[in-house]
Amino acid sequence: MKQKEIRIGMIGYQFMGKAHSHAYRDLPFFFNTKIKPVQKAIAGRNESAVKEAAEKMGWESYETDWRRLVERDDIDVIDIVTPNHTHAEIAIAAAEAGKHIITEKPLALTLEEAHQMYEAVQKNGVTHMICHNYRFAPAVQFTKKLIEAGRLGRIYHFRANYLQDFIMDPQFPLVWRLKKEVSGTGALGDIGAHSIDLARFLVGEFKEVVSIMETFIKERPMGEMSSGLQAKSNNSTLGEVTVDDAALFLAKFENGALGTFEATRFAGGNRNKNKFEINGEKGSVRWDMENMNNLEVYFANDEPGLQGFRLINCTEEIHPYAGAYWPSGHIIGYEHTFIHLVHEFLNGIANNYQPEPNFKDGLKNQQVLKAVEESAELKQWVNIAEQ
Amino acid sequence: MKQKEIRIGMIGYQFMGKAHSHAYRDLPFFFNTKIKPVQKAIAGRNESAVKEAAEKMGWESYETDWRRLVERDDIDVIDIVTPNHTHAEIAIAAAEAGKHIITEKPLALTLEEAHQMYEAVQKNGVTHMICHNYRFAPAVQFTKKLIEAGRLGRIYHFRANYLQDFIMDPQFPLVWRLKKEVSGTGALGDIGAHSIDLARFLVGEFKEVVSIMETFIKERPMGEMSSGLQAKSNNSTLGEVTVDDAALFLAKFENGALGTFEATRFAGGNRNKNKFEINGEKGSVRWDMENMNNLEVYFANDEPGLQGFRLINCTEEIHPYAGAYWPSGHIIGYEHTFIHLVHEFLNGIANNYQPEPNFKDGLKNQQVLKAVEESAELKQWVNIAEQ
Amino acid sequence: MKQKEIRIGMIGYQFMGKAHSHAYRDLPFFFNTKIKPVQKAIAGRNESAVKEAAEKMGWESYETDWRRLVERDDIDVIDIVTPNHTHAEIAIAAAEAGKHIITEKPLALTLEEAHQMYEAVQKNGVTHMICHNYRFAPAVQFTKKLIEAGRLGRIYHFRANYLQDFIMDPQFPLVWRLKKEVSGTGALGDIGAHSIDLARFLVGEFKEVVSIMETFIKERPMGEMSSGLQAKSNNSTLGEVTVDDAALFLAKFENGALGTFEATRFAGGNRNKNKFEINGEKGSVRWDMENMNNLEVYFANDEPGLQGFRLINCTEEIHPYAGAYWPSGHIIGYEHTFIHLVHEFLNGIANNYQPEPNFKDGLKNQQVLKAVEESAELKQWVNIAEQ
Amino acid sequence: MKQKEIRIGMIGYQFMGKAHSHAYRDLPFFFNTKIKPVQKAIAGRNESAVKEAAEKMGWESYETDWRRLVERDDIDVIDIVTPNHTHAEIAIAAAEAGKHIITEKPLALTLEEAHQMYEAVQKNGVTHMICHNYRFAPAVQFTKKLIEAGRLGRIYHFRANYLQDFIMDPQFPLVWRLKKEVSGTGALGDIGAHSIDLARFLVGEFKEVVSIMETFIKERPMGEMSSGLQAKSNNSTLGEVTVDDAALFLAKFENGALGTFEATRFAGGNRNKNKFEINGEKGSVRWDMENMNNLEVYFANDEPGLQGFRLINCTEEIHPYAGAYWPSGHIIGYEHTFIHLVHEFLNGIANNYQPEPNFKDGLKNQQVLKAVEESAELKQWVNIAEQ
Repeated sequence: MKQKEIRIGMIGYQFMGKAHSHAYRDLPFFFNTKIKPVQKAIAGRNESAVKEAAEKMGWESYETDWRRLVERDDIDVIDIVTPNHTHAEIAIAAAEAGKHIITEKPLALTLEEAHQMYEAVQKNGVTHMICHNYRFAPAVQFTKKLIEAGRLGRIYHFRANYLQDFIMDPQFPLVWRLKKEVSGTGALGDIGAHSIDLARFLVGEFKEVVSIMETFIKERPMGEMSSGLQAKSNNSTLGEVTVDDAALFLAKFENGALGTFEATRFAGGNRNKNKFEINGEKGSVRWDMENMNNLEVYFANDEPGLQGFRLINCTEEIHPYAGAYWPSGHIIGYEHTFIHLVHEFLNGIANNYQPEPNFKDGLKNQQVLKAVEESAELKQWVNIAEQ
Repeated sequence: MKQKEIRIGMIGYQFMGKAHSHAYRDLPFFFNTKIKPVQKAIAGRNESAVKEAAEKMGWESYETDWRRLVERDDIDVIDIVTPNHTHAEIAIAAAEAGKHIITEKPLALTLEEAHQMYEAVQKNGVTHMICHNYRFAPAVQFTKKLIEAGRLGRIYHFRANYLQDFIMDPQFPLVWRLKKEVSGTGALGDIGAHSIDLARFLVGEFKEVVSIMETFIKERPMGEMSSGLQAKSNNSTLGEVTVDDAALFLAKFENGALGTFEATRFAGGNRNKNKFEINGEKGSVRWDMENMNNLEVYFANDEPGLQGFRLINCTEEIHPYAGAYWPSGHIIGYEHTFIHLVHEFLNGIANNYQPEPNFKDGLKNQQVLKAVEESAELKQWVNIAEQ
Repeated sequence: MKQKEIRIGMIGYQFMGKAHSHAYRDLPFFFNTKIKPVQKAIAGRNESAVKEAAEKMGWESYETDWRRLVERDDIDVIDIVTPNHTHAEIAIAAAEAGKHIITEKPLALTLEEAHQMYEAVQKNGVTHMICHNYRFAPAVQFTKKLIEAGRLGRIYHFRANYLQDFIMDPQFPLVWRLKKEVSGTGALGDIGAHSIDLARFLVGEFKEVVSIMETFIKERPMGEMSSGLQAKSNNSTLGEVTVDDAALFLAKFENGALGTFEATRFAGGNRNKNKFEINGEKGSVRWDMENMNNLEVYFANDEPGLQGFRLINCTEEIHPYAGAYWPSGHIIGYEHTFIHLVHEFLNGIANNYQPEPNFKDGLKNQQVLKAVEESAELKQWVNIAEQ
Repeated sequence: MKQKEIRIGMIGYQFMGKAHSHAYRDLPFFFNTKIKPVQKAIAGRNESAVKEAAEKMGWESYETDWRRLVERDDIDVIDIVTPNHTHAEIAIAAAEAGKHIITEKPLALTLEEAHQMYEAVQKNGVTHMICHNYRFAPAVQFTKKLIEAGRLGRIYHFRANYLQDFIMDPQFPLVWRLKKEVSGTGALGDIGAHSIDLARFLVGEFKEVVSIMETFIKERPMGEMSSGLQAKSNNSTLGEVTVDDAALFLAKFENGALGTFEATRFAGGNRNKNKFEINGEKGSVRWDMENMNNLEVYFANDEPGLQGFRLINCTEEIHPYAGAYWPSGHIIGYEHTFIHLVHEFLNGIANNYQPEPNFKDGLKNQQVLKAVEESAELKQWVNIAEQ
């Protein structure tokens, strides 16, 4: 079997850079695709850091200016894992250079940028993807199949919580994720965006939303950390937190379903509890990323007395992607969602179809994000179509 | 030990009538109180039915007109377990007759009625209570103690779901609970009111709310059933459902906490899932009525590596009310919440204090209910204080 | 409806006395039987204590000598809730006096006594029952129905743990349950006997066993406590613990199934974890008394991809006994198992059939207990039939 | 940083071959070790199959005769992932050739072979390891730390179940795992050996055992399958199953703890339920491989009313190995246990220490296996030291 090589250039190398790098490395091992991702180069401003990252994560070369990476002829794909405020400029440049693009979420800092990005990829005819990796958990993909097969019937409720607690300590510093000019929003765009994507994937388009956004700790010690996710600051100078600690919203979907959403970084004891429940006419499902291999499924037409949520370990050959790994009952983890996402992206490039979720999904997601923000500011319902 | 007798007259005898009757019967067995409730009489319009109910549930006599019951000299307490639209008239008459009053929730059909009821009990100096029984689960009482002791710190989030599924079948008939003129509201007042009470008990007063109320099945077969909770109708005539199937709302509390609420009868697989989560500065709790003896508690200051939700079986001597029953690990059930509630009520009467939750709580609850309704109608935020 | 009165005399009034008394009191409320249990009298040696117990638990009169109770003409049933070493003498006297008998488990102190007791009830033609109450949890009764309907197919495995922790503190005193001359055995007869009964009920008769019995804490402070289940002793004199703290055994059943049993009072964190799992050719079940309303059921022929344990809340009309209580999803507790047991016992008396589990079951259970004891002493397999 | 290369040659390439290959590939990505495993060559008899496996799993070359692999100068390590009956011959040859050795479990077909293998590695001074990968789950390693720190106190009970269901269908064919001459034993050596290893790791050495071994399905269709783990056979010729479907045993440990073990392939609904519970004087733990990131921990000295099992997601920096991966709450899976195991092995080679578990552990494990087998045959207790 002759493999087609697809050469990747990645910009950024923190948490998401690690997840993406690993996915490229691991993909060919588990999935017998005809495509071989080549980790060609990464870019970062700090030379010693980017060099070390390249070595550690298996990249052949590095650049200290992302523009150089975009210009390189030996790169087919630009992978964007930088903070949110840089997505638009990079993506547009990459599209104009004819590169396929995969980017972290949220798509952009603002809806306007998102529109520009989507236009750019459309105009230049490149393949594009946005990294809503949770779609790619086997249990979530299996849920999609159940819904498409009509097994849940008409959907009444979608109920999503994305709960974290890593910034609850008031001494946690003012990292980039807590600054509006870099992140756009806080919990909303960082984790709520994932819940929005899951809702769009499983239920359909949003019609309107009403929200609360709150910042519980208004000021924090200045100071950045490499990982952005841990430790305390010793800096005694305080700076203003300009994004939300929590975002709650209610939603109506176009198909009549109702949604309840809560994204917060102030839910103690929940390290990364990304969960949802769906209640439909014929059945319900429950899922929780912290036990991501499990799916709970209820069918209203199960025989009387034997109705109850089934706890399904989605590690069987029949469950999407699971057959590539281990025998039933041997679980996979967080990183595998990225393998599946990258698998879909590269397949799209190789086989000339536009995979999902892509920039269009990112754009629609951003419309919801903007509506949620606007609703919180105006204290009123906001229609998505008007964004 | 000389016991003081308190003579009860109950109006109505369905589901709640059964729960209350049992509580009076069982209370003296478990709690060595100085008070002995005497099940003096019940009232109902259908003589053969009320007679049978009296026999079955241990009432000494019966009346076919509730006014007669209220007038009787040998009755100290009027217990109201009739549909919502009758609460006000009965309660006001009972108060004027100098009877102590215990009523099912919601307090009234409208906020105006609720105000009148509260005035009546105040003016006549009788003891009053409203049956928000879930407060009285040992795990919930224990949560209250944790909060009062400052163990959770400042509260950030209260997240409540009350999920049922008993009317999902479109052939389920148009029972009184589905008619606005009898019930006031649907899921909101029937089950959402319980979540509101739990929130007020554990977090504090509501400041403002924004909501969605939805009726998924707009028409149903006519026909009433005795229990009001089960079976299908064969009636082919359809009538309009005039209450909500589901009510979702976001809330801000006066102390700055945020609330997410969902009350629905369309959540398949959830027979009576009344659950809540609280996230505070120092800890979190989770509780679910379907496993009501269990409480999950997380403390942020547990030692590193050993932080996690503790699954506590609240059946130990130290847990409120639990010591009256069985050794640790031997669980109690739904009906016991009523025993505790009645215990508190009768203690209040005997010892001359006004127990909680009472008509004032019912009134405040009704303010929230009205605000939620208004918010759904007007599609805007509604302030509780303005109700 | 005319009710038949059955007049009860109970001997003993501790933990089990409370459970039985409550069952008599509560039975008529929930179950519309034609039988009305009358709590006629209780017996105990300490007059002030027995008098107080009678008042508290609703008995009309008391005796300070159990023989007097057995002789009374106004008593139909003798209920034995005394320590194990007294069961035989009382039961035989009661049988000879023509009383129906219900006794706590284990049936007797020794197998020989058990034989004598069974002979006595047979000879005198009285109705008899032994209080293996856990059989009467709706989830367990429902499991029985599934098995009888062939839904699990051939049974391969029965796996039972009965785990407690109330005597782990070495300062816990040398109560009667820890003395061989009073109790016969420790964890084995007290809790292991329940697992044996569940196995006999659900799987069938035992063929042979091999066991370990261990006493981890060999000496304890002298001193008795009223409840026998809690607190520490201040007594500095130590006495020898003469029963097992833990009993583990493997079993072969006559039908070829294999059993794994573990009864221990040294499993920290397990207050009363009485659980079992059954694996059959076509399905499996799991049950745990601490969440006794739940039953987990797996069917091998569920459709591929959707196979998993269903979490069933056995509170629906269709589940045995559950229909007598509350709507689906409203749980019951430990005490209700006694209501069902007493219901079955009194039905047997009124309708002239011999209910189960009865003295024959107690006798067979005792054979297993003896075989387990003998196996531990001899360190070899012991055949039940040879007991 | 200069990395030391360690060149691996692997013999066999089925399920375990895949797990090991992936571990070599993934190790350098997550762990910044100074060692770089080089996947030099694999060996297998079927040339086309071994060639394909080499390509798919990233091996530089292949051999069709394992002896050739052992002789190669460019190989430092021999990794044995072949069926059990071949381990001894290969390992001894490899030891004599001066190769470091890592082998799948159980160590050998017989105890005699195990002794020879251990002698061979000792005599030749090579580093050796046996793949009891479950030790290397972060939650298990963390349990070890808790025990070593005295947090559980004296251990009373170890309770292990390893439950599978993949051969329950009588049409599942007679694969090598079901033949005594190839596998030695069935459930016992395949999965029970893992429970034995966990017990030795966490509790200590076994003293004596008593067991049952059973073959529920005595004959099966002939026919082998590549994966050995799935599908049905169409072959109508039946062959005898010569190993156990289930092995149950009780154990006494040298330190006085008691063990209950059950390994079965006939526990429907349990795909790979490898679980254990430990009860100690001061605390208890519970773990289950199907949710391997979670650990439940109970401490007896937690404050009254707040005692309960804590559900700990062992994905924090503080949990062994977890820091190499993702932020807290982002789970890892089955394959990561092999990465940790290989990490430990290669570290041992590079830093000149003998890692654990090694051939000595394999030998001791085999002693227990043999004692269990003998106990089942003789129907009596068997002392480990006499093996």
